[in-house]
Amino acid sequence: MPEALKAERPAVDRLAIVGLGLIGSSIARAARRYGLARTIVAVDRDEAVRDRVRELGIADAVTGDPAEGAADTDLVILCVPVGAIGAAAAEMMPHLKAGAIVSDVGSVKGAVVAAIRPHLPEGVALVPGHPIAGTEFSGPDAGFATLFQGRWCILTPPEGTDPAAVETVRALWAGMGANVETMSAEHHDHVLAITSHLPHLIAYNIVGTAADLESATQSEVIKFSASGFRDFTRIAASDPTMWRDIFLNNREAVLEMLGRFNEDLSALAKAVRWGDGDALHAMFTRTRAIRRSIVAQGQETAAPDFGRPRPPEE
Amino acid sequence: MPEALKAERPAVDRLAIVGLGLIGSSIARAARRYGLARTIVAVDRDEAVRDRVRELGIADAVTGDPAEGAADTDLVILCVPVGAIGAAAAEMMPHLKAGAIVSDVGSVKGAVVAAIRPHLPEGVALVPGHPIAGTEFSGPDAGFATLFQGRWCILTPPEGTDPAAVETVRALWAGMGANVETMSAEHHDHVLAITSHLPHLIAYNIVGTAADLESATQSEVIKFSASGFRDFTRIAASDPTMWRDIFLNNREAVLEMLGRFNEDLSALAKAVRWGDGDALHAMFTRTRAIRRSIVAQGQETAAPDFGRPRPPEE
Repeated sequence: MPEALKAERPAVDRLAIVGLGLIGSSIARAARRYGLARTIVAVDRDEAVRDRVRELGIADAVTGDPAEGAADTDLVILCVPVGAIGAAAAEMMPHLKAGAIVSDVGSVKGAVVAAIRPHLPEGVALVPGHPIAGTEFSGPDAGFATLFQGRWCILTPPEGTDPAAVETVRALWAGMGANVETMSAEHHDHVLAITSHLPHLIAYNIVGTAADLESATQSEVIKFSASGFRDFTRIAASDPTMWRDIFLNNREAVLEMLGRFNEDLSALAKAVRWGDGDALHAMFTRTRAIRRSIVAQGQETAAPDFGRPRPPEE
Repeated sequence: MPEALKAERPAVDRLAIVGLGLIGSSIARAARRYGLARTIVAVDRDEAVRDRVRELGIADAVTGDPAEGAADTDLVILCVPVGAIGAAAAEMMPHLKAGAIVSDVGSVKGAVVAAIRPHLPEGVALVPGHPIAGTEFSGPDAGFATLFQGRWCILTPPEGTDPAAVETVRALWAGMGANVETMSAEHHDHVLAITSHLPHLIAYNIVGTAADLESATQSEVIKFSASGFRDFTRIAASDPTMWRDIFLNNREAVLEMLGRFNEDLSALAKAVRWGDGDALHAMFTRTRAIRRSIVAQGQETAAPDFGRPRPPEE
């Protein structure tokens, strides 16, 4: 897929990114590479992260002070874990100018809207966002400018949000190469519960089950992981704080999907126990169609490296 | 990792491979490339597969006749699905010469030994094997010579097997670049239940759960699959017949591991329901150690393409 082109004019003048982890630092890199902001301000409460961001040179200004980060800013994107978004919003919001826009990249949206809204000053628009992109790595070094290329970004503006604000955020993501879609926060949380949250819960769970095996077997689990288990460990290596917050903040949808999963698993276990080969074969065939659709829609390739985005040498 | 070198002398004179799918055709390619057999005979009951193997030119002889395949053969490797191994053994075994060796590549070993043993003629050794290698693709075109490079191959010779026969099979796998380990069939089935069989059952199950969602949501599942679900669909795209047979033939070990998995999942679900963030964080941190061990032991890389073997252009 062709890389995004440099924008003719910036989507925003002054862009503040709060939290320079994998996603935040990727936005900083992409916004600069594609000319999407005149000034990029990195805001992080962690001094080590600020030092590293300065070394990497991926922002025009770096600060630990929320008020300084908010000053004269057109768009603030909160890239902290979902559980920290309310506190980050409370610190910055009072310092925003009228006409500013607040966005985020949290993996749940209903709880995020609920956390930010009480702190939103008059005249500041809220356009929550969620880029469906990432790797299992964390921190400012893990980001890269092409992370969002060809990936989806879902925006969940509450009803009545200024369409111009939505368009500004959309233009930023489109400029970073993402496909942008808009839906309600509730619907987002329902869809992501099955595409993302439940898969992570299951992966964490099975790796945990393996970790509890007698130590002799556990070393063999590691040795022979290439037979399927390995892919689960990659998912289960994701950031623990981020994922704790996701489950705490999308509880109902996750538990509903888990209920469906458990019903299906009981049926499958029964087919194994009773040796019902036809039922097993039918089940295992049916799942191939979904895979084909995913490959057909360009969200995956059939290549052995899975077409995963490889961070360029920067 | 350096590629295996061409052997100084072949491990066997006449090698028969029964079933030219992903694994069988990879063995044919590797045996030729690394000079491990003087003559490679491809045996397949499917005419279309035989035609394709001839076109690919990966064997010295191609036949659909088990007797012809067995004639004067030193080593037969049965590469058919686990459920078909008994029938394949019954057809070929009577035609084997004394001193021949029978092996296989099945993902379960206890049931395979039970299926082959009744057909084993006097003077023929049984050395079951299981290469921990594969992709989600099937058929003679899917194979490649370096598939086993740096991967494990487990041999499960029954007690009292001629050590020379075990050594021949070991030398063949080592010659194809695999690390070879020997253990009992029972232990193999126990370890593989957690490293391979349960992960596949879980992956098939969650993809099935998603397939049952209302159709509107299902199209979104496909669209937003990059958020975790995608990796499960890859595992769940594996060959349905092969996996049906695995579950039918490793029932007890799979159900035992599933029981452990379900207990852990109940505890995790409870932590989500009660909002126990500390328990979730502890669980999600613990699983990282296993991942690190897997990367450290060279069964995975931290690279974004996961260091998966890429089939060379052949």
